[in-house]
Amino acid sequence: MITVDQLAKLVEGVVEGDGSAVITGMAPLSSAVKGDITFALSEKDFMAAVDTQASCVLTTMGAPALPKTLLRIKNPKTAVTILYNAMTEIAPPPEGGVHPSAVVSAKASIGKNVSIGPNVFIDDGSVIGDRSVIEANSVIGKGVKIGEGVRIAANVTIYKGVKIGSKVIIHAGTVIGADGFGFITKDGRNYKVPQMGAVIIEDEVEIGANSCIDRATFGDTFIAKGTKVDNLVQIAHNVNIGRNVLIAAQTGIAGSATIGENTMMGGQVGIADHAKVGSNVKLAAKTGVSGRVPDDVTLFGYPARDARETKKINGLLSLFARNASEIKRLIRGTMANEPEQKD
Amino acid sequence: MITVDQLAKLVEGVVEGDGSAVITGMAPLSSAVKGDITFALSEKDFMAAVDTQASCVLTTMGAPALPKTLLRIKNPKTAVTILYNAMTEIAPPPEGGVHPSAVVSAKASIGKNVSIGPNVFIDDGSVIGDRSVIEANSVIGKGVKIGEGVRIAANVTIYKGVKIGSKVIIHAGTVIGADGFGFITKDGRNYKVPQMGAVIIEDEVEIGANSCIDRATFGDTFIAKGTKVDNLVQIAHNVNIGRNVLIAAQTGIAGSATIGENTMMGGQVGIADHAKVGSNVKLAAKTGVSGRVPDDVTLFGYPARDARETKKINGLLSLFARNASEIKRLIRGTMANEPEQKD
Amino acid sequence: MITVDQLAKLVEGVVEGDGSAVITGMAPLSSAVKGDITFALSEKDFMAAVDTQASCVLTTMGAPALPKTLLRIKNPKTAVTILYNAMTEIAPPPEGGVHPSAVVSAKASIGKNVSIGPNVFIDDGSVIGDRSVIEANSVIGKGVKIGEGVRIAANVTIYKGVKIGSKVIIHAGTVIGADGFGFITKDGRNYKVPQMGAVIIEDEVEIGANSCIDRATFGDTFIAKGTKVDNLVQIAHNVNIGRNVLIAAQTGIAGSATIGENTMMGGQVGIADHAKVGSNVKLAAKTGVSGRVPDDVTLFGYPARDARETKKINGLLSLFARNASEIKRLIRGTMANEPEQKD
Repeated sequence: MITVDQLAKLVEGVVEGDGSAVITGMAPLSSAVKGDITFALSEKDFMAAVDTQASCVLTTMGAPALPKTLLRIKNPKTAVTILYNAMTEIAPPPEGGVHPSAVVSAKASIGKNVSIGPNVFIDDGSVIGDRSVIEANSVIGKGVKIGEGVRIAANVTIYKGVKIGSKVIIHAGTVIGADGFGFITKDGRNYKVPQMGAVIIEDEVEIGANSCIDRATFGDTFIAKGTKVDNLVQIAHNVNIGRNVLIAAQTGIAGSATIGENTMMGGQVGIADHAKVGSNVKLAAKTGVSGRVPDDVTLFGYPARDARETKKINGLLSLFARNASEIKRLIRGTMANEPEQKD
Repeated sequence: MITVDQLAKLVEGVVEGDGSAVITGMAPLSSAVKGDITFALSEKDFMAAVDTQASCVLTTMGAPALPKTLLRIKNPKTAVTILYNAMTEIAPPPEGGVHPSAVVSAKASIGKNVSIGPNVFIDDGSVIGDRSVIEANSVIGKGVKIGEGVRIAANVTIYKGVKIGSKVIIHAGTVIGADGFGFITKDGRNYKVPQMGAVIIEDEVEIGANSCIDRATFGDTFIAKGTKVDNLVQIAHNVNIGRNVLIAAQTGIAGSATIGENTMMGGQVGIADHAKVGSNVKLAAKTGVSGRVPDDVTLFGYPARDARETKKINGLLSLFARNASEIKRLIRGTMANEPEQKD
Repeated sequence: MITVDQLAKLVEGVVEGDGSAVITGMAPLSSAVKGDITFALSEKDFMAAVDTQASCVLTTMGAPALPKTLLRIKNPKTAVTILYNAMTEIAPPPEGGVHPSAVVSAKASIGKNVSIGPNVFIDDGSVIGDRSVIEANSVIGKGVKIGEGVRIAANVTIYKGVKIGSKVIIHAGTVIGADGFGFITKDGRNYKVPQMGAVIIEDEVEIGANSCIDRATFGDTFIAKGTKVDNLVQIAHNVNIGRNVLIAAQTGIAGSATIGENTMMGGQVGIADHAKVGSNVKLAAKTGVSGRVPDDVTLFGYPARDARETKKINGLLSLFARNASEIKRLIRGTMANEPEQKD
């Protein structure tokens, strides 16, 4: 239970109206009901907010007065985010219950207030922590450990032995614990390297939709607390990712690579196997990294270079393109490999 | 119901044999039955076509005479495509029916001749239009609206509140409406930006397999009529895509980017967040785009440039590679940063 | 049934202890039981191995003596791989059985010792070979043929008519046989090219998680024996891949491309439509290939070049970056397009 006044403190906002009103949820204007805090951040929204049933309207400093309890803030995006996270903390537990169509092994251990959706399968020896939600048609393999307050969306596959912390979110279609990609080629045949390790995902990690995190060959593939992974990301066997890393969509991290803390990757980044990427590194979208990357650098390009160097090179390439004929003539005039008549 | 003569008109073809024969389906030679139109476009096919039970054989102008009703056309690929689309228009509605293993909320609204496959889950408040097909093990969230004549293949996940038009095709494993990827980093922690918007997909859109289309932070992620998306494509929160766009596999479009009409993207293209790409743009495979792209241009490269400029640069780079030693000597001889002895 | 002595022969190892001990499984130290062979390859493992119940410990030549039957080998990774493959060959068939929640068409043909997991759907006319395993929530379309000893993991979708050989492994979330991506644009509308072909996957192929292999327009998309494909890979319509090819994660192969034998691709490689890539080719990660690639070359870069050429170019670009001002001055001083005052 939280009041408008308490929320105002969190976001350094100014209350107009009933600061003692109790807020129990958060919703956009189109669906907000009594008890909700909603938001009106544009001219159009101000009009619509007149009719909302919401108990409080978050709005800008300059918005007109409205016949509602208002919470005015300076930085709307940050404020909405802070409020959303605060509301999540105080949200009541899900009602819980196992849908009759779900198949839950008698040898699995299901916590309190756990919700298990239709057509879910939970195999022997799995443990699902209190207040966790497993949505429809997901599959939880043998001996999987899932912490408290976890949300696993629909059509997710968790292979045997994977360990997932608390307050983790895994979006639909994601696969955790499939075999790593390892083969030894001998006498013209590819022999499969055994993939007998596990995957450990710590608390407060979020994984997007249709991503893949492979189990380790031996040991563990590891994702530390607070790291967030987008959609269609590939994290290979034995990768080790530090805390609070942000990994945008379609990025691929190859086998045994390590990533430090707070590092950020744009979309479609590629990190080669056994690369060692430091902390607080920024990798621009599509950057291709191999080898060792020190802390605190910003890289861009394929192959990856310091972002300023890549920008300098791209400027030179534009200059070359504008002067292509002259450059060709210069090179052909002075150098042995390019006889003039070739043009 | 359509006759060989009517089909001939559509494709500007020439009929040999019974032009009044009624055609009810289309199938390759290996599986065609009576009522079908099939195709024989190569030497090998001409032989096999002698034995087909099909009621009409689509073939080339130069093919030998066959003891069958023939429809001769000049451009086989285009003709087959036009016929296929014509046949689709006149196809009888699916028989419909809900498989007994499907879980359909009593609060969902299911149209006429709708087919719902095994182990499908349809949540409260969803609306499925007439003649739509939801294949096995797909999950339709709360309050989803699906139009008429839609095909949703197996293992698809549609999150709550997504709106899908009519004659849409969504292939297996695709996820629509997962949370966008947005975090605010504060005091060394990543706070999740609320993802409270929706996804709107207009009529005649096709989405490939294992693609992801995220819901908007607020407002809508939007895909206009007639746009076609391949497999493993990422479309992030708040992206807006115009009509009749073609997006090849593994392309990623980051948050809030906008795309005009009739634009075409090759595979593995990347479009940065907030980029504004015009209409009738062509992006070669693997191109990386950011900022503003005007209408009617063809871009290629990472970073994206006019395709002719990138080709010019690539030609110069080849020239440089062939003359690398001379270029190094030239630069070292005349410039301060590269003392001769470094070589 | 196999003994320690027999295993020692396979890996050219040295036995200490009971060479006649019978080995029935393979497991890491943390979970090995009697009958298993386990492995201790590091200082820490040597300690832990003292307490294992395993019947044999695979270890290095230099490891200390242990009160266990030891199998000492020179190259641990190769030895473990060879043993794993040997154990797989002699593994007892799965117990078999159809989970009561699975929906198996009466018109499907299920072999001996086949295991079909919860919520699986197998449609009319499909054939599942002996000892194959279909894991939970997977969907097998109409008329699919699956060979012997195949493992299909959870949430996989196989569309109608796909043909899969024996000893194939398909990981979770993968989609085989979705429509190829083909449209003809006419009068501002995209007409869908019919996708009526099939997919053929030969024996001993392995496909990773969340990958996509599209059906052919006509004819077949084809993957030859022994080829291994990683996660999130796109293989388009009518692609033809030779034997023992290795394809790392997030690689995309566009329509009608052909790949020879034993070719290896790093992650995020792109191969353009109709490209012809030879045998024994190596493509570095993120390489973009089009046109014809001869046998036995190593390519790197976008666009793809001989790896040595790309490395030479990257060296020159670094040199240019270090001397950018001088190069700009040189070009502006001697060339018409860049007047000095522009700087």
